[in-house]
Amino acid sequence: MKWTQTLIPTLREAPADAEILSHQLLLRAGLIRKLTGGVYTFLPLGLRALRKVEQIVREEMDRAGAIELLLPALQPREIWEQSGRAETARDVLFRVKDSAERDWFLSPTAEEVITGLVADEIRSYRQLPKNFYQISVKFRDEIRPRFGLMRAREFIMKDAYSFDVDDATAQVSYQKMFDAYVRIFARCGLKALAVEADTGVIGGKFSHEFMIPAETGENEVVFCEQCGYAANLEKATSAAGPSPAPRHSEPPVPEKFATPGVTTIEALTQPPFRVPAEKQIKTLVYIADSRPVLILLRGDDQLNEAKFAAALGTPVFRPATIEEIVETMGAHPGSLGAVTDTRKKLDVPVWADSRLRGAHDMTTGANEDGFHLRHVSVERDIRVSHWADLRTVRAEEPCAQCGHPLKIRRAIEVGHVFKLGTKYSEKFNAAYLDESGARHWCVMGCYGIGVTRTLQAVIEQCHDADGICWPLSVAPYEVCITPLNVAPDSEVMKLAEKFYAELTGRGVDVILDDRDERPGVKFKDADLIGFPLRMSLGEKSLAKGEVEIKPRGGVLQSVPVANATAAVKKWVEAEHRRLHGV
Amino acid sequence: MKWTQTLIPTLREAPADAEILSHQLLLRAGLIRKLTGGVYTFLPLGLRALRKVEQIVREEMDRAGAIELLLPALQPREIWEQSGRAETARDVLFRVKDSAERDWFLSPTAEEVITGLVADEIRSYRQLPKNFYQISVKFRDEIRPRFGLMRAREFIMKDAYSFDVDDATAQVSYQKMFDAYVRIFARCGLKALAVEADTGVIGGKFSHEFMIPAETGENEVVFCEQCGYAANLEKATSAAGPSPAPRHSEPPVPEKFATPGVTTIEALTQPPFRVPAEKQIKTLVYIADSRPVLILLRGDDQLNEAKFAAALGTPVFRPATIEEIVETMGAHPGSLGAVTDTRKKLDVPVWADSRLRGAHDMTTGANEDGFHLRHVSVERDIRVSHWADLRTVRAEEPCAQCGHPLKIRRAIEVGHVFKLGTKYSEKFNAAYLDESGARHWCVMGCYGIGVTRTLQAVIEQCHDADGICWPLSVAPYEVCITPLNVAPDSEVMKLAEKFYAELTGRGVDVILDDRDERPGVKFKDADLIGFPLRMSLGEKSLAKGEVEIKPRGGVLQSVPVANATAAVKKWVEAEHRRLHGV
Repeated sequence: MKWTQTLIPTLREAPADAEILSHQLLLRAGLIRKLTGGVYTFLPLGLRALRKVEQIVREEMDRAGAIELLLPALQPREIWEQSGRAETARDVLFRVKDSAERDWFLSPTAEEVITGLVADEIRSYRQLPKNFYQISVKFRDEIRPRFGLMRAREFIMKDAYSFDVDDATAQVSYQKMFDAYVRIFARCGLKALAVEADTGVIGGKFSHEFMIPAETGENEVVFCEQCGYAANLEKATSAAGPSPAPRHSEPPVPEKFATPGVTTIEALTQPPFRVPAEKQIKTLVYIADSRPVLILLRGDDQLNEAKFAAALGTPVFRPATIEEIVETMGAHPGSLGAVTDTRKKLDVPVWADSRLRGAHDMTTGANEDGFHLRHVSVERDIRVSHWADLRTVRAEEPCAQCGHPLKIRRAIEVGHVFKLGTKYSEKFNAAYLDESGARHWCVMGCYGIGVTRTLQAVIEQCHDADGICWPLSVAPYEVCITPLNVAPDSEVMKLAEKFYAELTGRGVDVILDDRDERPGVKFKDADLIGFPLRMSLGEKSLAKGEVEIKPRGGVLQSVPVANATAAVKKWVEAEHRRLHGV
Repeated sequence: MKWTQTLIPTLREAPADAEILSHQLLLRAGLIRKLTGGVYTFLPLGLRALRKVEQIVREEMDRAGAIELLLPALQPREIWEQSGRAETARDVLFRVKDSAERDWFLSPTAEEVITGLVADEIRSYRQLPKNFYQISVKFRDEIRPRFGLMRAREFIMKDAYSFDVDDATAQVSYQKMFDAYVRIFARCGLKALAVEADTGVIGGKFSHEFMIPAETGENEVVFCEQCGYAANLEKATSAAGPSPAPRHSEPPVPEKFATPGVTTIEALTQPPFRVPAEKQIKTLVYIADSRPVLILLRGDDQLNEAKFAAALGTPVFRPATIEEIVETMGAHPGSLGAVTDTRKKLDVPVWADSRLRGAHDMTTGANEDGFHLRHVSVERDIRVSHWADLRTVRAEEPCAQCGHPLKIRRAIEVGHVFKLGTKYSEKFNAAYLDESGARHWCVMGCYGIGVTRTLQAVIEQCHDADGICWPLSVAPYEVCITPLNVAPDSEVMKLAEKFYAELTGRGVDVILDDRDERPGVKFKDADLIGFPLRMSLGEKSLAKGEVEIKPRGGVLQSVPVANATAAVKKWVEAEHRRLHGV
C-alpha cells in the first residue's frame, strides 16, 4: 500500500476525552475514530490490525477443532425470555423495535441461538462433541462506555460454545479452548495470565479469565508469586485467619451499651469504645427478589458482590434504601445488627461470611439508633440461615495454597472460558440420545475473546514514549519503506518502489510512505503507528550503496542495497517464527 | 475438513415456508437456518461460501483502489436527522433504545457516518479522490421479509462511497466501480446485466443496477435485444406512440354525459360507451407533503411510482383516502377528472404524463358521480402544473434508441452504483480546498453489493434438479472426496486420506465425506450441496487401479490412482482461471 492512497490521519495531540494511553494511541495513530460514546469507526490501519487478530483467533479455533459459523445479531425477545436473560442481562441489552412494534435484542452473546440450533440439528452422541464459534459484531448497552475499545457499546467478539455428552468430555473441550487461548494471546505478542474466575450465577467449577496485566485494567487479579495461584478478585480466596478462640469458656451474654453518634465501623474503633474492626460485625441490608436479606461480615472485611451473587444464584439484587432498612430493622444504618429478637422483622434470611463462624465477643448494632451490643457470639446469638465465602481478599493475606503473601494487581480481561453445564441445554431442549437410546442434556461450555479489546490490550502492553510497538503478528503493516525523496524520477524513489515490489512479491506486508513530507515527520509517524520494521532510503546512504533498516525500538543498521530485500524478509520470518512458536 | 467434524444438516424435503428454489436449496443443503422471519444463521458451509463471495468483492474493490474500513452498525439518531433520512428512510430503520432512553438506528447504509468522517479527516484536493468501502452486517426493517437471503432483515452488504473534486473525476470513480462490479459478478460465476436505474429522489444522471435474470426476481428489467438498451422498469422509457393528432381543426368543447354505475376505465370501453382506454384520462389523487396532488395518465397506462417520486423529489407520498378524494374533487373514484372548474378544489397541483401532451377528444370523469366528460383537449381544458414521464413501459413497445420491440423480464438486483453528487457533502460539511484555497463540496458516489443476496443469486442461477451447481470460486469446498468404505484400516479409506492430505497440501479446498453412509446417500448429498468436483473411491475401481472423478453435472471419468491428485489439481486450476479470466 502507498501511504497517500489510504487514509492515515495521525494526530499530534490526543483528544481530551481519551483517558488511557492505549486509547490515545489508537486515535493518534489513525487507527480508529469515535462516532459517539462507545461506538467507533475502524480506519484502514485499525481494520488491518483487527483482521490480523481475528485471523489468529480463527486459526487457533480451527486448529482446536472448533467450527466457524455466523449467528444473527438481531434476536427476537422471546428466546431471551426463554433463557431468563431478558431479565438477568436486562441492563446490558439494547432493545430494538421494528415497525410492527415487535421487540428484539441486539446480541451481546449467543447462548440462546446456538443452543436452539443444536437442539434442532444434533440428535445423537455420535455427533458429539462439537464446538461452534463465530467472530462477529456484538452489542452491550454500557451506561459508561470508556477507554476506547475496552468498554464499548459495539465491538467484535469471538464466542464459542461446546456441546458434550458428559462432564468428563466437556472438561476435555474446556481444556482445548484453554490451550487455544494461551496460544492466541501469545501469538498476539501478549503476556496473558490465566486466572480462576467467578462462575457467577451459573455455577459450575470451571472458569478462567485471561488477563493482561495493566495499570488501567478494570479488573483486579490476586496472585501468588510462590505457587502460581491466580484468581480474579471477585473469586479469590486466601488463608486469612479464622476467628480467634473465645476468651472465656462460657462467653458472656450480649449487653447493650450507648454509642451516641457512632454510625461507622471506624468510629467504634476510636476512644472511648476502642473496639477493633475485626471484633465488629458489619450488617448490610440488600433487596433480592423484592425481599430484604441481611449480609454479615467482619468489620474489617468488604462484601464481594460477585461471591454473593454466586451464592444467591442471581445477580439481581441491590442495597436497600434507608426506608427499606428502617422498615426491616427498626433502626438506621450505623446501628444495625442481626442478633435475633433485636430486629424488627425476624423472617429475613441472614447470610454470614464464613470468617464469622465461631466468632465470640463481637460488637454489633442493637437495632436501636445510638446503641450497640457487645459480647455477641455469632453462632449462639444470630440465627444465620446461610454461611458462605462473601468477603474480598486483600493484598498480603496468605495464599490458601502455600501461605505465601498474595499480591493484587490490575488487569484487562481479554478472554473467558467457562463450563456452563446444562443450564441452557435444559431451557432450549438440547438433548442427545446415547448408545442405548436414552436421552441426556448436552453439557455445554462457552468461551469468549474480546477481539477489539485484545487489539487495544496489545497497545496497552506494547508501547513506548514514541508510540505503539506492534508485535509483527498484528501490525497493520509489517514494514514501512521510507524514501526521503519522493520525486518519481529520483534514484531514491525508484529504489523504494523496487523494494516495495520485491517485498510485496515475497509476501511481506509493506507500506510505502510516498508522502512529500520532511524526514522528521515521516519517522515520527512511523514510530507513532509502530510499524515493526522501518527501511529508510536517503541519498547519503545510497551513495554508500546502503539502505537503513531499523526495528521499532531497536538499533539502526546499514545494509548493502543488494542484500536489503533478503535481510528484511529474513527478519520478518524470524519474528513470525518467534511469535508463532508457542 | 472431514464431514463428520463439521455440521452439514442436509434435508430431504424443503421447509414449507421456503417459496423459491434457491431458498429451499440454501436450507436443504445445510447452508443456513432460519432464526425468525428474515433473520438467518449461516451454518459452516454457508459461511464458507459467503466468505468466498466477500473475498472476491474485497479483491476487486482493492484492485479498483478502494480502501477498506469498518463503520459502526449502531448509529445515533441525530446524524439521521441531519441527513433527513430519519424521515425518508423511516420505514426501513430499526429503532434502538438504550437504558438512558436514547435513540439509535441500525445502519442499512452509511452515508451519514462516512461523510462525517471525510468532513473531519479530508481537507485538501491532494487527498482526493478517495473511495472507502466496508463489508459488514446491515439491517433493514422489512415488513415482509421473504425468499430467504433475498429480502432479509439482517444481511451482509458491501457499501462503498467515493469522494471526488468534481463531476468529471466522480465519473471516473463511478466507472471504476462499474467495471469492478462487472468483474465481481463474473468471478462469482454470475451472468449479470447492468441496467439503467432509477436515481430516486436524489437525482443525478448516473445510476446502474446489476441484475441477475431470474423468474423469482423482485425487479423487472426492460431490455432491447437489438441495441442492448437495458433499464429497470422503474426507470425505463420507450418510444411508445404519442397522442394522435386531433380529428378536427377546431376540436369540440367538453360535453358531460351520464355514465351510471361506470367506475372503471374498463367499464367505459364497453357498450354503450365504447371509449377505448387510450382515449380516456386516468385521474389519480395522491397525498404528498400532506397536500393532495392529481396525477393524469392515459387510460391504458399505469403510474410508475418511482418516476413520480423522482419528479416530485421525495418518496414520501401515498394514495389519498376516499374521504380525501371526495374532499378534493367533490366526487368518488370512478368519476374523477382534472378538467379545470369541474373540480371542488382548484389549487391542487396537476402532474400529467408526457404522453397526454396534445391529446384531444379524451374522456374523463366529470367530478360528479355517474357522469363523464367527452371531447376533452388536455392542454386546452386542464391546467397542468407539471409534465413528466410518469408511465410504466410495457413489453413490445418500441425501444427509444432503435425502435426494436422491448422485452421485459424479472431479475434479482445484486448491486447498485450511484452518483450521489453533493447531497450528503453539503449536509455533513464534507468540503475540500482546491489549489487556490477555495472551498468546494466533495462530489460523492455510492456503490452497494448485497453480498448475502449475491450468494443466493448464484444458487438461483446455478442449480439443477439434484441441487446446487456451485461455480468453483464460491463453492463451500472445491472437491468432495467420497470413499465408499470408511473403515479406518480399509485400503479405500487409507487412499482417501492420502488424497485428502495431498490435495489440501496443494491448496485445494477439500472435504472428505467420512460418514458411514450408503454410497447413494453420499452421492445425493454431494450433488445437493453441489461441490464442483467429486472424487469417488470404491473397491471395484481401486482393483483396476483407478478412482472416479466427476464434475458436478458433468461426465464421470476414471483416472489412474497415480495421476488422480494431479488431474484434480489441474481441473481446479483451469476452473479458477476460467472464472477469474474476465
